Amino acid sequence: MSHYQAPVKDIMFLLNNVFELSELSELPALADFSPDLIGAVLEEAGKFATGVLAPLNSVGDQQGCSFDDGQVSTADGWIDAYKQFCDGGWMGLALPEAYGGQGLPNFIAMPVNEMWNSANLSFEMLHTLIQGGSEIFLSLGTDVQKARYLEQLVSGNWTVAMALTEPAAGSDLGAITTRAILNEDGSYQIKGQKIFISYGEHDVAENIIHLVLARTPDAPPGGRGISLFAVPKYRINADGGVGELNDVACMSIEHKTGLHGSPTCSMSYGDNNACFGELIGTENRGLSAMFILMNAARLSTGLQGVAIGEVGYQRALEYAQERVQGTDITGKKRVPIVEHPDVARMLLSIRSQVMGLRSLSYLIAARIDKASLSKNEQTRQSMNSSVALLTPVFKAFATESANLMAGTTIQIFGGMGFIEETGVAQLMRDSRITTIYEGTTGIQAKDLLFRKIAADKGAALSDLLAEITQDAEVLASIDSFTSLAEVLQGICAEVARMSERVVQAEQDDQLGLYAGSLAMLEAIGILCCSWQLGCVALTAHQKLQEGDDPAYHENLIALTRFYFAHFTPRVLSLTQTFFQADAGVKDYQFSVR
Amino acid sequence: MSHYQAPVKDIMFLLNNVFELSELSELPALADFSPDLIGAVLEEAGKFATGVLAPLNSVGDQQGCSFDDGQVSTADGWIDAYKQFCDGGWMGLALPEAYGGQGLPNFIAMPVNEMWNSANLSFEMLHTLIQGGSEIFLSLGTDVQKARYLEQLVSGNWTVAMALTEPAAGSDLGAITTRAILNEDGSYQIKGQKIFISYGEHDVAENIIHLVLARTPDAPPGGRGISLFAVPKYRINADGGVGELNDVACMSIEHKTGLHGSPTCSMSYGDNNACFGELIGTENRGLSAMFILMNAARLSTGLQGVAIGEVGYQRALEYAQERVQGTDITGKKRVPIVEHPDVARMLLSIRSQVMGLRSLSYLIAARIDKASLSKNEQTRQSMNSSVALLTPVFKAFATESANLMAGTTIQIFGGMGFIEETGVAQLMRDSRITTIYEGTTGIQAKDLLFRKIAADKGAALSDLLAEITQDAEVLASIDSFTSLAEVLQGICAEVARMSERVVQAEQDDQLGLYAGSLAMLEAIGILCCSWQLGCVALTAHQKLQEGDDPAYHENLIALTRFYFAHFTPRVLSLTQTFFQADAGVKDYQFSVR
Repeated sequence: MSHYQAPVKDIMFLLNNVFELSELSELPALADFSPDLIGAVLEEAGKFATGVLAPLNSVGDQQGCSFDDGQVSTADGWIDAYKQFCDGGWMGLALPEAYGGQGLPNFIAMPVNEMWNSANLSFEMLHTLIQGGSEIFLSLGTDVQKARYLEQLVSGNWTVAMALTEPAAGSDLGAITTRAILNEDGSYQIKGQKIFISYGEHDVAENIIHLVLARTPDAPPGGRGISLFAVPKYRINADGGVGELNDVACMSIEHKTGLHGSPTCSMSYGDNNACFGELIGTENRGLSAMFILMNAARLSTGLQGVAIGEVGYQRALEYAQERVQGTDITGKKRVPIVEHPDVARMLLSIRSQVMGLRSLSYLIAARIDKASLSKNEQTRQSMNSSVALLTPVFKAFATESANLMAGTTIQIFGGMGFIEETGVAQLMRDSRITTIYEGTTGIQAKDLLFRKIAADKGAALSDLLAEITQDAEVLASIDSFTSLAEVLQGICAEVARMSERVVQAEQDDQLGLYAGSLAMLEAIGILCCSWQLGCVALTAHQKLQEGDDPAYHENLIALTRFYFAHFTPRVLSLTQTFFQADAGVKDYQFSVR
Repeated sequence: MSHYQAPVKDIMFLLNNVFELSELSELPALADFSPDLIGAVLEEAGKFATGVLAPLNSVGDQQGCSFDDGQVSTADGWIDAYKQFCDGGWMGLALPEAYGGQGLPNFIAMPVNEMWNSANLSFEMLHTLIQGGSEIFLSLGTDVQKARYLEQLVSGNWTVAMALTEPAAGSDLGAITTRAILNEDGSYQIKGQKIFISYGEHDVAENIIHLVLARTPDAPPGGRGISLFAVPKYRINADGGVGELNDVACMSIEHKTGLHGSPTCSMSYGDNNACFGELIGTENRGLSAMFILMNAARLSTGLQGVAIGEVGYQRALEYAQERVQGTDITGKKRVPIVEHPDVARMLLSIRSQVMGLRSLSYLIAARIDKASLSKNEQTRQSMNSSVALLTPVFKAFATESANLMAGTTIQIFGGMGFIEETGVAQLMRDSRITTIYEGTTGIQAKDLLFRKIAADKGAALSDLLAEITQDAEVLASIDSFTSLAEVLQGICAEVARMSERVVQAEQDDQLGLYAGSLAMLEAIGILCCSWQLGCVALTAHQKLQEGDDPAYHENLIALTRFYFAHFTPRVLSLTQTFFQADAGVKDYQFSVR
């Protein structure tokens, strides 16, 4: 079952909003990207998502991947869809024209990627991996490496696998033990085992470039002794073509609760001491190299949350409009369940979260573009800081929200939601990994408090709060929005109070901060969504003044009011929790029975 | 994988607590139930749960049930475990001795049932159905019916299926269309189709008694025209033995995301016009008859939530104590993840919810016992009102919590939690139905506001708040608990404010109340758990004074403090949401694209 329609109208509304508010139009490099051009790209992507990828989503879920003696087969239709995806030029959409890509900026790629994720999360991972891997080669590759790999990746001829995790090294990558020994010719021999490698082996493309974290013999211990290597499944001949097997073997694939369409591989490198790898960047700088990909991967994962919410909303709305059950408040008229206020509440809870988070994702994308394209050094710096601050918030909050939204979708379907044929249980199962991979929610919260707030003494967060306060003042200038403005200012103050504590914390407060880190992250997540929806209401108000599509824009204002009533108040309780988060945690003895 | 150990120590602590606080010891009928006797029952039940039922839980999940030409086979081991369960006398534990049961009161049956649910939710449904079905016959059956059915049910020779739902009648049972036509001999011919019938067909017992809701030809429309019938799979001979097939057919079983061990059947009754049924109670009173079973089923479902939380906690704690990853705050020592404050927070969030909800379940069970055993009419009435008020709260809040707790369990396992072999993904999949069956969360919230609060002008809720306030005063008398007491009093006041609005609401406020009903239900759920944990802290404090098991009792106080820091503050935001819940809901037009 597919039932996904690309929400082009919502996307265009938010994209225009972010585009204008972010003043992207002032960047010469983006001058050519007119709304018409963007709309055309989105329409085409939407057709591909709906027509090609979405129908394969349940096929992937039901068939899963199969493993036979080291070979992995994807589900029926996967190979053909991959070919169409590459032929359509989608693989290189946001990769440089110099290597065959289309060079579109991030803020256009973000909504397109959202569509791929809504249509088929398992499939989109192939693209995300290639996009991230290409960025690593672009940043750190030698000219020879760029020439060797990039065209093949951008065309989709070769795919990428991120080979980080080992059985004893998951969240803590400093603990990895895979070895890399320098050969005389400057290449390395790789030896070790990795687990949880998405698309580590498959049948959709000619070669797979494994980006492997490994340790050279004299490397310092921990995270400072890890290097990054490109390890192709098939060695690459001098002419750039594919040669013999490179002693890279898939040992098994996992039986997961979700993402069945994407093979999760246990890989073995160098069983026969014949696994060749080439260093990317410099020795012992592998973790920071990997973080180029990791930050992008975290944003992509947050976007998966938005995408799961959107498709769940579409399915739930369709069901709620069709399913007649119970009566209206008069008790006389049988009604479709969408007319029951509690069902409406559930639908609006999904839709308002999606719109808030989606807007935030586009804002981040626009800031990434400004960080790389602006001619103003200060702008580039402040954009980079803002993206760094928002990345853990978006990753963790959007994926935690996705799990709740998937649950709400099933709840709206009632008993039918529990039946696999309906297709919505897959959303719950697929979304469950999003709060775990690419850094768990706990790791995002820790990153936020200690690296993104404490480390810069709260400067980036202060800038964000100042920005939100400014928009709250605009809200306050419109009579019907004054209460929204007050609420927004109030929760800014709460977040500022939390920030102050983080910045001033003494050593003995670390446990309390850490135990309260998720509460603070969630508070900032809700603040950001409240802010974005406040901006949505402002633009919708403007459109209404102009008489443009009143029903649609009135709905957006209603949606903002809903979020401010049903989500925004949580900041108050999260703040309370944050300030007393060590209660119990400090004293509890888990070893006592 | 099983890994379930019956938490007898925690159960005994809470049971003694509730037993004393509820003054059950003053009831002559319960005078024989000494703590030693109760402890012995729990130990035996725990052994059976751990040794027999828990090992089958993953077998049921992985194999599921199979359907072949109308026959349903349960997973390997199910038939034998069922026989052992019956032979051990567990089926009739809380059913009357007159019919072969053991006649134990509710407050002992509740913790025993919790164990069955933790060990194997799919299996326990067989028992829950028989328990509930037996109660219907006990309340409404004629002497002939009691003689015909009860011994067979109590022994487990025959099982029960609840045949309520039809494709167009789920939450709204008034819409059912199955027909019942009176025969000359006083029996009825049943004709119709039912869906989502748990254990509607299976291979573990000799006969299945379907309790079927159907409509007689001249019945009034809607819920007031529905009658309840006993429809055996095999007709019952004059001698009480099993006779010929009764034109009851299983058409298919569902492919569900969870509860794979329990067959969910589509049933057809009377395809050949030869389906015999006998009326239970009087015509057109079927819905209220079914509600005898339904209220018990709602409490059982809430208990499933507690049970899922407990087993998830046990698994997650074990993993967190074994899994070494990352370093402590000094950055030097590698530690098991239980030492990371955010992981400790997750573990305590599960454990504190389980302890609060479990205590609430035992309190409700004790009140059911008092309602039936007290010699004082006023006590019986007030106990009945209290149970009626708490049932929707416990059902909805414990199951919503179960979904969150299952998610947290997986989160603690990280990537391993997403792999089915670990066994914790099953908790997420199994728990997903608990907020849906036996009345969705939305239906519980509606029941709470309109039938349990508005209908009695808030009287039962006022009584509850008075009781909590009284316990808060006891808390306030202990120096170290004064802040807990203040918080508890504060949230009582918030709930009282909400109640006032519900009681005084005008007709035009119905939409807002309905849209805010879940917020109010959750606030009362948190209030009840805070109250119960406050009582836990009081008793633990007392034990500490006596020098009894200090480490255990100090942990319980830490747990209470944790809950008050991490959950109790949510009442504030839920109250805010409740008072503005119609925002957006009132105005949003779902038909607008």
